[in-house]
Amino acid sequence: MTDLGPEPHPALGDLVALIGIWTGHGRGFYPTIASFTYGEELRLGHVGKPFLTWAQRTWSLEDGRPLHSEVGYLRPSAPGGVELVLAHPTGVVEVTEGTMAAGRLELRSVNIGLTTTAKEVSQVTRTMELEGDTLSYVLAMAAVGEDLRDHLQATLHRSA
Amino acid sequence: MTDLGPEPHPALGDLVALIGIWTGHGRGFYPTIASFTYGEELRLGHVGKPFLTWAQRTWSLEDGRPLHSEVGYLRPSAPGGVELVLAHPTGVVEVTEGTMAAGRLELRSVNIGLTTTAKEVSQVTRTMELEGDTLSYVLAMAAVGEDLRDHLQATLHRSA
Repeated sequence: MTDLGPEPHPALGDLVALIGIWTGHGRGFYPTIASFTYGEELRLGHVGKPFLTWAQRTWSLEDGRPLHSEVGYLRPSAPGGVELVLAHPTGVVEVTEGTMAAGRLELRSVNIGLTTTAKEVSQVTRTMELEGDTLSYVLAMAAVGEDLRDHLQATLHRSA
Repeated sequence: MTDLGPEPHPALGDLVALIGIWTGHGRGFYPTIASFTYGEELRLGHVGKPFLTWAQRTWSLEDGRPLHSEVGYLRPSAPGGVELVLAHPTGVVEVTEGTMAAGRLELRSVNIGLTTTAKEVSQVTRTMELEGDTLSYVLAMAAVGEDLRDHLQATLHRSA
């Protein structure tokens, strides 16, 4: 460990390219809600161990009030394999798994846990595309009785 | 919202007393591992919404290297009821529920989710006791084939 902090763990492999602070804009839509736009910050960090820390928050572009947030960890599994564990303030926890290849991260939920008072979410897929200093994603969700369908789409840029 | 940030949401009730940065020491033990001691920081914050943010990290008292961490959200449910959702870098997500009364928080897991490569954890209980500026807890765990038994015990003090 140096004054600059530890080196990324070698097991992170291609995930190292994601380390940074990503900011940008997105839009949300779903059959049960009015469409909306949002600002977003996604912080992907590390502490020298074989996982990335994941801390996301979004805010209203109208008045800056906080909207969603989610926190957790991104883990390399087998070569090219990725596991993501997240907690949401809506009372949802998410285990998603998939692959990262050629800058493309494809994840599908394998387990969604809900607290007693949480709204029903039954499935999530996340597709993220890294091109240079641009990170874009689409999140699809099956929730509140709806089938799996696109819910969020955003483009973020590396700001640190 | 003022320059000092938003007021805590009224639905937080007694959970407001937990808002702060808590630091201290703990010890860990389990039949399958050598006992150990650790330093800990637990940050419980809020953004004006009806939940607390939860960010915990522990480190070795010998060399300061990071040990465990966990992140998530603590939510009031019914009056006196509490829900906690957490993600762990070990590939574990945890939904625990319980009560807070007279400074005592008693939580029991209702759902544990695991990634494919995570070690098996099947149950967690958390008992936290708040007395003035001291927060102590005991965490019990059923994991890797062992029955539910105490695993962590720590005493933290309010540092902010």
